[in-house]
Amino acid sequence: MDAETVRRLEEIFPKERLLFGKADRHSYSFDASFGEYLPEGVVQPETEEEISRLLRLANEHGIPICPRGAATSLSGGPLPVKGGLVLDMSRLRQKLEIDRENLLAVVSPGIITGDIHRAAEEAGLFYPPDPSSSLVSTIGGNLLENSSGPRGLKYGTTKEYVIGLRAVAPTGEIFRTGGKTVKNVTGYDLTRLIVGSEGTLAVVTEATLRLIPKPPARETLLAAFPKLIDSGHAITAMLTSGILPAAMEMMDNACVRAVEAYQSCGLPLDAEAVVIVEVDGHPAAVKEEIARCAEICRERGAQRVTVAADAAERDAIWRARKMISPAITRMGPTKISEDATVPRGRIPDMMEALVRIREKHRLNLVVFGHAGDGNLHPNIITDQRNREEMKRVEAAVEEIFDAAIALGGTLSGEHGIGLMKAPFMERELGPEGLRMMRLIKQAWDPNNILNPGKIFPEPGQTRLVLTES
Amino acid sequence: MDAETVRRLEEIFPKERLLFGKADRHSYSFDASFGEYLPEGVVQPETEEEISRLLRLANEHGIPICPRGAATSLSGGPLPVKGGLVLDMSRLRQKLEIDRENLLAVVSPGIITGDIHRAAEEAGLFYPPDPSSSLVSTIGGNLLENSSGPRGLKYGTTKEYVIGLRAVAPTGEIFRTGGKTVKNVTGYDLTRLIVGSEGTLAVVTEATLRLIPKPPARETLLAAFPKLIDSGHAITAMLTSGILPAAMEMMDNACVRAVEAYQSCGLPLDAEAVVIVEVDGHPAAVKEEIARCAEICRERGAQRVTVAADAAERDAIWRARKMISPAITRMGPTKISEDATVPRGRIPDMMEALVRIREKHRLNLVVFGHAGDGNLHPNIITDQRNREEMKRVEAAVEEIFDAAIALGGTLSGEHGIGLMKAPFMERELGPEGLRMMRLIKQAWDPNNILNPGKIFPEPGQTRLVLTES
Repeated sequence: MDAETVRRLEEIFPKERLLFGKADRHSYSFDASFGEYLPEGVVQPETEEEISRLLRLANEHGIPICPRGAATSLSGGPLPVKGGLVLDMSRLRQKLEIDRENLLAVVSPGIITGDIHRAAEEAGLFYPPDPSSSLVSTIGGNLLENSSGPRGLKYGTTKEYVIGLRAVAPTGEIFRTGGKTVKNVTGYDLTRLIVGSEGTLAVVTEATLRLIPKPPARETLLAAFPKLIDSGHAITAMLTSGILPAAMEMMDNACVRAVEAYQSCGLPLDAEAVVIVEVDGHPAAVKEEIARCAEICRERGAQRVTVAADAAERDAIWRARKMISPAITRMGPTKISEDATVPRGRIPDMMEALVRIREKHRLNLVVFGHAGDGNLHPNIITDQRNREEMKRVEAAVEEIFDAAIALGGTLSGEHGIGLMKAPFMERELGPEGLRMMRLIKQAWDPNNILNPGKIFPEPGQTRLVLTES
Repeated sequence: MDAETVRRLEEIFPKERLLFGKADRHSYSFDASFGEYLPEGVVQPETEEEISRLLRLANEHGIPICPRGAATSLSGGPLPVKGGLVLDMSRLRQKLEIDRENLLAVVSPGIITGDIHRAAEEAGLFYPPDPSSSLVSTIGGNLLENSSGPRGLKYGTTKEYVIGLRAVAPTGEIFRTGGKTVKNVTGYDLTRLIVGSEGTLAVVTEATLRLIPKPPARETLLAAFPKLIDSGHAITAMLTSGILPAAMEMMDNACVRAVEAYQSCGLPLDAEAVVIVEVDGHPAAVKEEIARCAEICRERGAQRVTVAADAAERDAIWRARKMISPAITRMGPTKISEDATVPRGRIPDMMEALVRIREKHRLNLVVFGHAGDGNLHPNIITDQRNREEMKRVEAAVEEIFDAAIALGGTLSGEHGIGLMKAPFMERELGPEGLRMMRLIKQAWDPNNILNPGKIFPEPGQTRLVLTES
């Protein structure tokens, strides 16, 4: 970074919020995905105005700016792949207001998502999106990746709960989108364009979230299936029974074993699949619904079906589910997390395809995910130093994407495209679909300074190459 | 239209679907809003390919193209204000597929929305959006205006139910957005950008809609309030009680009188406000919830509260609600329909503001709407030949917009900006917000051929002028 740019940055930020030391740069060089990129520096704004001035400067000088929340991204969202500055948003956490009368929350981007859950519940309200990382990830990161977690089935994704934003354009202008009303058709929906844009279109400085009344009751069951394929059919049967569960999760035998090895939760080690179903709503309704779900699971071959008798038993079930990620992380040094998503009815087909891919490439491929959404999380546990195995990983990941697209699905349900999936964008969208997206990026960010290298493939980049990164 | 252009159009469309006669042009010169504009001609495509060829030609020659569904728009959506061709989409109605397993519908834009409701219900499913015009309006028009009707409160707007599109860009390219999965973060959300874009960004040729299981039971009540302001407080009290009604509608005394004069539904003529509440879900839950809503209405001053005992009584209540529009249309030759929307908790304030505006300008201003969304529909009944009164109408409409914005609301909840609200866009969005929208329009439609003159104000156009239109 040349001296003149540093001098101009120092006009915007006090020295203690402008980090150029090697240790600092290394601290900001990775996220929860695969890959490591060293930024030239890190800035830690505390106000919207500072971000606006930074982006004007960056736009003028062509400096890449990579916004970052808590860096729990699984797709490389905050990685400074083109160098430049990491924009650490974690100090923008001034605001967490719950507006009970209007069923809204107004939040700063650096607020931890779990704190919004807690504040909403204290007011008798509910913010449904709940990514696995919600106890540590920021709402800003959740919004920009549109990461949603298990409740998408009944409650929709994060996007459905964002009704207004304050944001800074890549060229520095401060603007607002949407507002405090659920219905709003005043011009184009820039709110939903920015939510899920992976930090490439604007920097969000405040968000207005829609809340709903807290469901008065919930019931949870865990069903163990000796046959994986039966679990897929049970899921489809429950979804077409007229019940809309709040969550419907599955994990395969490898996940079950990993969790039990990590911290025993009493999961049956011989089950090819474990399914968790939660319904919420009126107490009488949820009792009936969970009984019907249990019956469907048994009819479709589940060997053990446990309905949680109380909150403690329910928490134990969810603890097992939330343990999967840390548990499988211990299975090997490198974890490739995917989130290819298929239409709900194609879940059994996708499960079969994943078994086929695992066997063909002889990989440690484990599967869990939000089965009710069709949003599975196949994870490959590997070692990036093993170049021969990484070649097989590359081929397997490519086949996972192709299988999802062939089944009418999508590359990513909630992790984002980021780095690794960019080469496959055209396979799903065609050249024209990708072009319509690029036109927006170019119109808003003509100098390509905001999170460059994400979403859009580089020219000629049409395959996954893990071994050269 | 010059002879060469007509010749090129004839290469795309057979003569019987290319209308230049005066009677035809007049038939396509109006919608359900205020204003009449004669197109140069009308085209009636039957395929996506024809639309693509048309748009390429129009883009090359700078011909305005104005897409039109059933022309029930209340904001001038399909009006050819810059001349050119009306694109009659009503023949694209080949597809209405219900995919029960995946809880989806795939539809052509010319399909009547009410037919989607019927087909979904036959499969035990439910498509919640329900604009008042749903028995005649097309799904294409509903999507492009994001018109949603009474169920936005619980179920969200139309946008929340569109997960994929096929579309033609203003430059003629055919592309698709989203897909068949509820979770999809593969690049920017072009689906929601196009939904609600009022036909200015792309022509939709197919849509994939998300359906939900049909709620097993519903309960409906009608409450009559001697005081308007009490009804506002009752609405707020119900909304913060933990109940999320499927619909919550209100009408003022003028609407009550209009409906009774048009076709008696037994509404109490002395009520300053009538509120309709519907809850749906599990039978036990809805019984409890409607009883609680009735109790709240009584506590807040309702004099008569009737819970529908059966489907016939429920239908009678909804018939009264659906009668409002035709009933008030008979009150005078010109009806200006607005849909300014405020945060829910500000409904009493907005009602007071509307009473003040009505009295100040001595106008026949009636109010009804989706109170649970904060989405009121103030309607001014007037006569456009009375220029003196129209001046007062202009001032009143401007004050309605200002009141909504001052209360943290928006110009339009679901009718769209269209023509009349364009001058007020900047008041709500600021110059920067409007600029971000314009950048997208310019990037996708560089020659401004798709529905020009809508949403964006003309240079210097900052006030409403009804009398010169």
